[in-house]
Amino acid sequence: MAQAGRWYFEPIRPDLIVGSALEEVIYKGKTRYQDVQILRLSGFGLCLVLDGKTQSAEADEYIYHEALVHPSLVAHTRPERVFIGGGGEGATLREVLRHRSVRRVVMVDLDREVVEICRRFLPRHHQGAFDDPRAELAFGDARAYLNDTRESFDVIILDLADPIEGGPAYLLYTREFYRVALARLSPGGVLVTQAGATDPLSCQGGFSAIAHTVATVFPGTLAYTVFVPAFGSPWGFAMGLAEPLADAPTADEVDKRLRERLAKGTRFYDGITHVGMFSLPRYLREGLRQETRVATDEDPVFVT
Amino acid sequence: MAQAGRWYFEPIRPDLIVGSALEEVIYKGKTRYQDVQILRLSGFGLCLVLDGKTQSAEADEYIYHEALVHPSLVAHTRPERVFIGGGGEGATLREVLRHRSVRRVVMVDLDREVVEICRRFLPRHHQGAFDDPRAELAFGDARAYLNDTRESFDVIILDLADPIEGGPAYLLYTREFYRVALARLSPGGVLVTQAGATDPLSCQGGFSAIAHTVATVFPGTLAYTVFVPAFGSPWGFAMGLAEPLADAPTADEVDKRLRERLAKGTRFYDGITHVGMFSLPRYLREGLRQETRVATDEDPVFVT
Amino acid sequence: MAQAGRWYFEPIRPDLIVGSALEEVIYKGKTRYQDVQILRLSGFGLCLVLDGKTQSAEADEYIYHEALVHPSLVAHTRPERVFIGGGGEGATLREVLRHRSVRRVVMVDLDREVVEICRRFLPRHHQGAFDDPRAELAFGDARAYLNDTRESFDVIILDLADPIEGGPAYLLYTREFYRVALARLSPGGVLVTQAGATDPLSCQGGFSAIAHTVATVFPGTLAYTVFVPAFGSPWGFAMGLAEPLADAPTADEVDKRLRERLAKGTRFYDGITHVGMFSLPRYLREGLRQETRVATDEDPVFVT
Amino acid sequence: MAQAGRWYFEPIRPDLIVGSALEEVIYKGKTRYQDVQILRLSGFGLCLVLDGKTQSAEADEYIYHEALVHPSLVAHTRPERVFIGGGGEGATLREVLRHRSVRRVVMVDLDREVVEICRRFLPRHHQGAFDDPRAELAFGDARAYLNDTRESFDVIILDLADPIEGGPAYLLYTREFYRVALARLSPGGVLVTQAGATDPLSCQGGFSAIAHTVATVFPGTLAYTVFVPAFGSPWGFAMGLAEPLADAPTADEVDKRLRERLAKGTRFYDGITHVGMFSLPRYLREGLRQETRVATDEDPVFVT
Repeated sequence: MAQAGRWYFEPIRPDLIVGSALEEVIYKGKTRYQDVQILRLSGFGLCLVLDGKTQSAEADEYIYHEALVHPSLVAHTRPERVFIGGGGEGATLREVLRHRSVRRVVMVDLDREVVEICRRFLPRHHQGAFDDPRAELAFGDARAYLNDTRESFDVIILDLADPIEGGPAYLLYTREFYRVALARLSPGGVLVTQAGATDPLSCQGGFSAIAHTVATVFPGTLAYTVFVPAFGSPWGFAMGLAEPLADAPTADEVDKRLRERLAKGTRFYDGITHVGMFSLPRYLREGLRQETRVATDEDPVFVT
Repeated sequence: MAQAGRWYFEPIRPDLIVGSALEEVIYKGKTRYQDVQILRLSGFGLCLVLDGKTQSAEADEYIYHEALVHPSLVAHTRPERVFIGGGGEGATLREVLRHRSVRRVVMVDLDREVVEICRRFLPRHHQGAFDDPRAELAFGDARAYLNDTRESFDVIILDLADPIEGGPAYLLYTREFYRVALARLSPGGVLVTQAGATDPLSCQGGFSAIAHTVATVFPGTLAYTVFVPAFGSPWGFAMGLAEPLADAPTADEVDKRLRERLAKGTRFYDGITHVGMFSLPRYLREGLRQETRVATDEDPVFVT
Repeated sequence: MAQAGRWYFEPIRPDLIVGSALEEVIYKGKTRYQDVQILRLSGFGLCLVLDGKTQSAEADEYIYHEALVHPSLVAHTRPERVFIGGGGEGATLREVLRHRSVRRVVMVDLDREVVEICRRFLPRHHQGAFDDPRAELAFGDARAYLNDTRESFDVIILDLADPIEGGPAYLLYTREFYRVALARLSPGGVLVTQAGATDPLSCQGGFSAIAHTVATVFPGTLAYTVFVPAFGSPWGFAMGLAEPLADAPTADEVDKRLRERLAKGTRFYDGITHVGMFSLPRYLREGLRQETRVATDEDPVFVT
Repeated sequence: MAQAGRWYFEPIRPDLIVGSALEEVIYKGKTRYQDVQILRLSGFGLCLVLDGKTQSAEADEYIYHEALVHPSLVAHTRPERVFIGGGGEGATLREVLRHRSVRRVVMVDLDREVVEICRRFLPRHHQGAFDDPRAELAFGDARAYLNDTRESFDVIILDLADPIEGGPAYLLYTREFYRVALARLSPGGVLVTQAGATDPLSCQGGFSAIAHTVATVFPGTLAYTVFVPAFGSPWGFAMGLAEPLADAPTADEVDKRLRERLAKGTRFYDGITHVGMFSLPRYLREGLRQETRVATDEDPVFVT
């Protein structure tokens, strides 16, 4: 009997739901900002669930985190200083630190409790990254941090919750925020943000709205997508470039840079994967081409 | 309340299930070969479900059917005679007939009743394709048909149920069958088969086993994948070439051929989409590289 | 696999849900007053579902309808004129008409469309009762009807939707309404109303509030309960007596009256069943004893 | 959204399933005999689940355990020595020990590990009963124990898993076993066994087969039923009497005996509740009347 027993259900849309066999409730609680669960789901391993939305799963988090981190660091000539907004599990930090050129990473997460919970319960996610001497961890609003700092960064990575009305993150998806971030990028710098589901039936255009907003601020913009099993959907990312790319890197160039810069090979990302991620299916390119919305502080874009 | 009301649940794995709001049970019955349902699912429209497995949904069948049909016809210099094995909904036939060069299509489906049900209840799927004078419809075993015919084809398209133990299709995924099919291809001919889910956590290697089996028979082989929302997973295809490709077509070449050959543009497939589909993520390439299984009549490969 | 396939889910509480295998969606639509579904559920047969709440199922409606109708008619010396408020399926009417003494039944249902749908799709529920010459069918508000008529009734049966905030029925559960109804009862008359779930963990006291409200208006009051499989819960009823009962009828007396008054035996209700229904478990008697709420037009009692 | 989040599903029949919001997985494991889970379910509190079947829930176990224990002890003139077969949670023991006349209770459960798990995780179930000096706990087969002992008992209580094919308990529901048990009853002794669901649509006649088997062995037999929310169904019990009852106790007699014999009042069971439980609805009496099956060691009766 497939569905007797313990299950965890998560809606993709109001009329579409994914259920996973639930092995264990490792942790559940409420922080000041959000509802937190650490669940062990059959086939997925330990999962972080915030406000009822799976953030990452042990079994496939490398897909999401490699896709989030490496394209922007590879796009940069020599990434030394990196800023991470969000990223509570520590896996984004882990991937950044694999780049030998990186000398300093500032990670600013809103929710100290979530980071502590992840540090304790998700060791395979962070793999000790928080203890790396190059990493500096701060708690608070990433936007306020970037606004107030005088430091500049080569790469800014935004590993955030989706922009939900009333949620903690939607002001990190607006034109005003991207201007703040661009001002903190060094010449040749790159920003990348997670940009939500790209499932053509479910994504509600959040992806294209985010990518378009980035495009109104940055001299260069790229968007890409990858299937993440734990999200039950392909997932999108938008990249803003402080200087437009002359040419997109070829698969061979991506592979060459990874070989030169990383001590140990990636599991998911490489040159051909890169080409696949950036060669968007037609419906996504059409969506981007037709998109006119710009998320602003006054008129944000929400996904639901 | 999300899950009160009528729902349709379909397992992806024993421990992973997808539920869709069910609007209407249009048809349910049993044919000689299989269990048939036509359901209207919220967001997906009319769906054909055989033996509890969604075959296609009105809202996104163009993704699956364009991905199945056009790469092989585009790879061919001038496809005139096409064979379709399976394809009961008529949507594969519909896409084939859009190519102006096509002069004759033979479609052989095992289950006359399923084709009649689709013809009656799924008009947006077939869009009248069954009435095209170039189309010849036959009922029976596609393998027996290919074995017995003296006709040769430029393209053979296999739009089949997954190879399930005891199911009606697994002998259309074996080395022996691919040899029969290759013998019926004209010089420069192309075969393509659907090859199951490529979700890295769920696919159980069916995809790589099928692609590897094709590779043991055909001089050239290609594999590709695309996300299909109604399947809740990216989906794989394997292509066998009667003569190895000198060079893979570029995005521009794909677009040029589509412009020349089709009266009306595609919705999903084009040059960049093509590049994305064929640039497999690393885990799939690794899976293909390490695959050693060859499905034979005596020792078939099953997915469950 | 138990839960693959088509299912119908109905919440009993927000944290408790019952799912039934769904065989067919016979009808779905919206009337002026409510959402209507006729579903065929495995094991239950055809079910009427209003606003997402199962009203009755072919397989066990005799339990609910016999429990609703016969105790009050049996309590009356010689029921001739009966009023039914609600009762769209026609099964309450059917049970009333089985009493040979009954000469006239007025059934007033708010929703003409629901009655027409039931008449068409639920023939095993009504079994032709609507065509009985003793039955008069009217559409509109049962309270307004009772308020305006000069006729009096021996028995008033209220077969209504639960009192839901914003729903069509909550003003048929108030003290003011019961006063109207009592004024229309002939001497020795009896009123009975369905009174919602009596599951000790889920019933939220709707049952005791309704019974207590009846008790504030009627000289005599009785409450009883019976398990109804299609509701997944025991169900309650409250009876108001225009004159207090000297003695409750014994099992033998109930059986004697049934034999004398009904042409054909009941399936569920008889003397011993009667004793079982009226011998409430302690938690229900305690709940009734401690109840102080009185539903009024200004301050109704709702169940959710 | 009702069904997003963590849920626990348990089938009542293959086509009927009950889902509860799952708060915590307190324990899961396998003993030598069975699969064990301690779950905290919303509204039900801590639940013991054996082989996927809820045995009892903190919030309503008093209903099941009072219904199992008190009628037989009340039926006995002066119960001093009591035998419990099964009863791992310790709640049956707890209820037995409330009777002041009881001087010795032998509880024999097959599964030492389950008893230890309950003792540790379900303190509100046993409430320290295991530490009562009148209680003797043994592990092993209750049938073998009764067969081998020379001791006789005033009351034998069988708090067992349902008779499932291949399960640990079905040989404790046969004629041969009841003969062993009857031989161990003192004059005037009483045996009671749980007898499964009595839901008229789901119970498959397990209840009537058990009661009928008891009736073929014991001079007197009684059957009764009560709704248990955690089982989603009314539940049945069969009682075998070493000497036939002259008269069933009246509600007042039950209340009088409870007052005399128990230090503290019951929560669920009393005189009127007793009458309600023993006044079976007609369909159950009909089922009992028509039952012809007798479970034997060679030809047991199973429920599924």
